[in-house]
Amino acid sequence: MADLRYAVTGIGNAIVDVLSHADDDFLSTHSLAKGHMTLIDAATAERLYGDMGPGVESSGGSAANTLAGIAGLGIEASFIGKVHADDLGRIFAHDIRAMGVDFPTAAANDGPPTALCLILVTPDAQRTMNTYLGACVELGPEDVDEAVIAASAVTYLEGYLWDPPRAKEAFLKAVRVAHENGRKVSLSLSDGFCVERHRDEFKDLVVNHVDILFANEQEIMALYQVDEFDAALQAVRGHCEVAALTRSERGSVIVAGDEVHVIDAEPVAQLVDSTGAGDLYAAGFLAGMAQDRNLHDCGRMGSIAAAEVVSHLGARPEADLKSLIAERLD
Amino acid sequence: MADLRYAVTGIGNAIVDVLSHADDDFLSTHSLAKGHMTLIDAATAERLYGDMGPGVESSGGSAANTLAGIAGLGIEASFIGKVHADDLGRIFAHDIRAMGVDFPTAAANDGPPTALCLILVTPDAQRTMNTYLGACVELGPEDVDEAVIAASAVTYLEGYLWDPPRAKEAFLKAVRVAHENGRKVSLSLSDGFCVERHRDEFKDLVVNHVDILFANEQEIMALYQVDEFDAALQAVRGHCEVAALTRSERGSVIVAGDEVHVIDAEPVAQLVDSTGAGDLYAAGFLAGMAQDRNLHDCGRMGSIAAAEVVSHLGARPEADLKSLIAERLD
Repeated sequence: MADLRYAVTGIGNAIVDVLSHADDDFLSTHSLAKGHMTLIDAATAERLYGDMGPGVESSGGSAANTLAGIAGLGIEASFIGKVHADDLGRIFAHDIRAMGVDFPTAAANDGPPTALCLILVTPDAQRTMNTYLGACVELGPEDVDEAVIAASAVTYLEGYLWDPPRAKEAFLKAVRVAHENGRKVSLSLSDGFCVERHRDEFKDLVVNHVDILFANEQEIMALYQVDEFDAALQAVRGHCEVAALTRSERGSVIVAGDEVHVIDAEPVAQLVDSTGAGDLYAAGFLAGMAQDRNLHDCGRMGSIAAAEVVSHLGARPEADLKSLIAERLD
Repeated sequence: MADLRYAVTGIGNAIVDVLSHADDDFLSTHSLAKGHMTLIDAATAERLYGDMGPGVESSGGSAANTLAGIAGLGIEASFIGKVHADDLGRIFAHDIRAMGVDFPTAAANDGPPTALCLILVTPDAQRTMNTYLGACVELGPEDVDEAVIAASAVTYLEGYLWDPPRAKEAFLKAVRVAHENGRKVSLSLSDGFCVERHRDEFKDLVVNHVDILFANEQEIMALYQVDEFDAALQAVRGHCEVAALTRSERGSVIVAGDEVHVIDAEPVAQLVDSTGAGDLYAAGFLAGMAQDRNLHDCGRMGSIAAAEVVSHLGARPEADLKSLIAERLD
């Protein structure tokens, strides 16, 4: 078996976020699905951007945010995702490397520009995301280095990868290589609409391939088509080794065989922008696993990291997560 | 005399800021002059960016920030400044227009990319700026539409325009046209080092051409080469119709002939990043003048707008300045 080089390698869409404040009227005028991620084409992106207020740009992408958080906790991490060789692509590459994440994927010189997510943050701190996938559609299995996956204790995948067609092949290749090498596979279900789009395939993944699952309440209920959180919890129980289910201000529930942990949400002084909450929960959780912590403490680390990211605009941690964890947990 | 279309037209460097947290060690390792703006070339920008932590991108530029604030207060405003037709140029143009500022300057299709300011924010909330002027060197007198200047009650200029050579010509053309049409000229001295670079010319401007002057303590003392704020205050007194001198947490002093107003700083709950403090002070002040308020209230509006911008990362207002002013002043 290859030596372990990374605790976690993530594969995801490489996206730069454009964050802007908006009110509920703006969402309804533009028929935007509040709290969700909607895929948009280049023309829609241009139109929506033109109508939006002034923005702040910040590197994003669900799995990329998670990996940035993991590296911020001092854990060896790498990320696979496709940008174009343009200004935004350079910003994305700089930011993830500056967090300490290895980012080996070559930027595309042809094809569409770097992906953008136009995010409207409403006064209730909810985020509504509109993603133009751009260069992400260029990600394919050739970008997945088998040696890297073989050398990663966990390969972490975002469900959003199911949207760009060739990324799915990259995803499945990574799953195969990870398991052939006795490594773990972790998946985030990403978004309720995303689960609706790909339910059957996601269900097959969860039942047959995923060791560590992350999902919020809405996503796990959409997966099993049930109306009660508890029914979804019982369903996922036998399907994955570990499932960490997040419930916003109600904290999270972790199930692992017979073990169940109910973790409180970490108090947040001022809820500013929920973008990245789930991503950073996964970051804290996986970092905890890499440090061989018990599941309760993994969950607490997830809550602490999530609480940091919702206290400011943007989906990447601004504070020193290591000190925060040391202060609140250790 | 032409009809008044704009209360304020600004001319300045069109810059996108890259804001990142850093400690004092980083500044000394890289020999950066804390609290100042330093001009850097493309190679230095690339090297410094490579060493910086993850960033957040936000439209900036001193005069552009001021104009964004003025428009945010519901005042008719326009901005003249040069970007390149690239991602960052599009971001700059979007953000200033989204604030409600008219921005007629054509983007350059040739020459250097859009200007960048690499800003290191230290834990004391001080900002240290490193500017790569890029496309700003392409701004010239041909970008100054005489009809726009003639139709603007105030033409507002940043001292930084003295750095790119042809921008100075644009600046002087605007001054001439404004005065030929009986309009006011306002200048911000921008930065102590900038004053050192251009002292004689700035002094000539202040004595002979500027009606409304903005400067901080350090800048006005550098202009007159004096060690005491009061000496600078007495010197500027006869030189401009109005001089608004800012003193950070000690508030500001406004002199206008025999009139002197000492204005307290507005309390700030949490000082996060001082980037844009002077720019937003000028915004509040000029908006007050456009509303025919007395000088005391103009100064208060400046303080309130500055207090908003230092309470978060970035140099553009995030809160609704109109409501803030209504709440605290009216």
